[in-house]
Amino acid sequence: MRGVVLHGPGDVRVEDRADPRIVQPTDAIIRVTAACVCGSDLWPYRGVDKSDEPAPMGHEYVGVVEQVGDQVKTIKAGDFVVGSFFASDNTCEICQAGYQSRCVHAELIGAIGTQAQYARIPLADGTLVATPGPPDAGLVPSLLTASDVLGTGWFGAVAAEAGPGKTVAVVGDGAVGLLGVLAARQLGAERIVVFSRHADRQELATEFGATDILTERGDQGVTQLKELTGGLGAHSVIEAVGTQQSMMQAIRSTRPGGHVGYVGVAHGVALPGEELFFSGVHLHGGPAPVRRFLPELIGLIWDRTIDPGKVFDLELPLEEAAEGYRAMDERRAIKTLLRP
Amino acid sequence: MRGVVLHGPGDVRVEDRADPRIVQPTDAIIRVTAACVCGSDLWPYRGVDKSDEPAPMGHEYVGVVEQVGDQVKTIKAGDFVVGSFFASDNTCEICQAGYQSRCVHAELIGAIGTQAQYARIPLADGTLVATPGPPDAGLVPSLLTASDVLGTGWFGAVAAEAGPGKTVAVVGDGAVGLLGVLAARQLGAERIVVFSRHADRQELATEFGATDILTERGDQGVTQLKELTGGLGAHSVIEAVGTQQSMMQAIRSTRPGGHVGYVGVAHGVALPGEELFFSGVHLHGGPAPVRRFLPELIGLIWDRTIDPGKVFDLELPLEEAAEGYRAMDERRAIKTLLRP
Repeated sequence: MRGVVLHGPGDVRVEDRADPRIVQPTDAIIRVTAACVCGSDLWPYRGVDKSDEPAPMGHEYVGVVEQVGDQVKTIKAGDFVVGSFFASDNTCEICQAGYQSRCVHAELIGAIGTQAQYARIPLADGTLVATPGPPDAGLVPSLLTASDVLGTGWFGAVAAEAGPGKTVAVVGDGAVGLLGVLAARQLGAERIVVFSRHADRQELATEFGATDILTERGDQGVTQLKELTGGLGAHSVIEAVGTQQSMMQAIRSTRPGGHVGYVGVAHGVALPGEELFFSGVHLHGGPAPVRRFLPELIGLIWDRTIDPGKVFDLELPLEEAAEGYRAMDERRAIKTLLRP
Repeated sequence: MRGVVLHGPGDVRVEDRADPRIVQPTDAIIRVTAACVCGSDLWPYRGVDKSDEPAPMGHEYVGVVEQVGDQVKTIKAGDFVVGSFFASDNTCEICQAGYQSRCVHAELIGAIGTQAQYARIPLADGTLVATPGPPDAGLVPSLLTASDVLGTGWFGAVAAEAGPGKTVAVVGDGAVGLLGVLAARQLGAERIVVFSRHADRQELATEFGATDILTERGDQGVTQLKELTGGLGAHSVIEAVGTQQSMMQAIRSTRPGGHVGYVGVAHGVALPGEELFFSGVHLHGGPAPVRRFLPELIGLIWDRTIDPGKVFDLELPLEEAAEGYRAMDERRAIKTLLRP
């Protein structure tokens, strides 16, 4: 089969890779209908995350089940499925508490690489959710977002306790941040403030439900937000970048007793204990337990309540994956969808 | 009046200080019945927190109201009162959300110094809670704990979401940690594990409701706890020290999706963002909003459901405050009560 392999910083190639096969009796093999490039794929693409050897890429996927292992019970060949970027058994104590990305049997789908024609999905029953039937073509991009970027933005909003009566601020105007806006709107937030300097992203944020746009960053951004909120800060802040500056902007934008939901993969972040202590905020985040939200998110997409697929502003055949990475790296695209 | 003043590391003196008087119409003057030495008083006592000039000490207090300002409505002369270590108006948006220690008009009682015969308490209506009547002498130590050390341990347990079915671990066997044990028990925790190496503290922890004692610290302590909890870690961890080691021990002792309630005043702590991100824990803490809990805690003490005053294992006249500090510094005493 054909699949994307990163050979080094900036060096994306589409190559022949071995066809996946059932390894464990709990595996499924899927034919990937659509995959995409994640903001977190840009960390190794930019050389911030180092790798010594060529790495298959991709952890977001929707597709059709080709084959299942002997012990797979709820997923069957022919199902159209959406899965999380972590495989999980969905039965252990941690999964049952809603933290499937930290399942005691968790496996990282990123190590498998779903920017490819086929993929082996471990723990199929606990990882994949079948749609009610074959989806209309127009729903596929939105279903694909549920696999990570929507699930992650949603978790950020849930972790930040976005809800009725709340002012929610969003740090980061990438696809995760934008879908954090959509999530906050769905969860009933009263006011949604997004920090953004890019006209296209501001526009999509507004479409997804943002009520206010702020153009400053860091402590200037915090000052702008405080002016909007009677000096107090937001009740809920979604952090969707993962840098020291964005984390401190998120913490300082949150009122005492408020909640920071942080879902940007942390890079080089060290949180000062004294400031955190006296801030009085709640901090929660990490790799989103997407599986927790999949049934609900698929439902919202299926009945056309939400249209998160709008974050894809570039669609390419799998063979042109390199251009998909470049466009995101250069901020010419918010998010690239790849068609194997 | 007589009051405690810290002149430098280890230099505690009891001196004549100016009698307090009403400054704002929202003030009250109280005659201090009992005060005490806080674990946080040991930071400046040990020279870890620097001060250039002599500092009046003490922020925990119970007493009888002598006089109130013109605008004080709910507190009157003769009331026996317990107050928080932060003055708060208890009416602003932050107070109403339960974060009175970050009230928009908050004032630190530590700057006033309650290890003294009298004290001026700002924002009396929002800071002080009157007991149902004059307390029996035997209740005074317990009521005094509500002013900070019990309220702080309680907040740690609430922030860690201690409750029915939960395994709660407590890092720190000082008075706050021990009262965190008591709080976790009251909140219905199923299992309460305390890290402690001191026989007297282990005994009091057990009396307050601890079910398990672990004697290792740091990562060895984490390993011991994981062995007790099927490899998963505790649902809830109360951090009551404030050092880098204790914070990391708390975070690493918590299962993914679990809650760390941290109430030890942070000193020199820097939390590694990557580890925190992948831990998947909730983090909440800071200066306890004691005022939120005062009515409930006074009720539990008044009807003798709890006896937190047992943390005082040394009682001295105010004039002997220096010995009270020394005994705590040398761990000869868990907590010192001072009688003005």
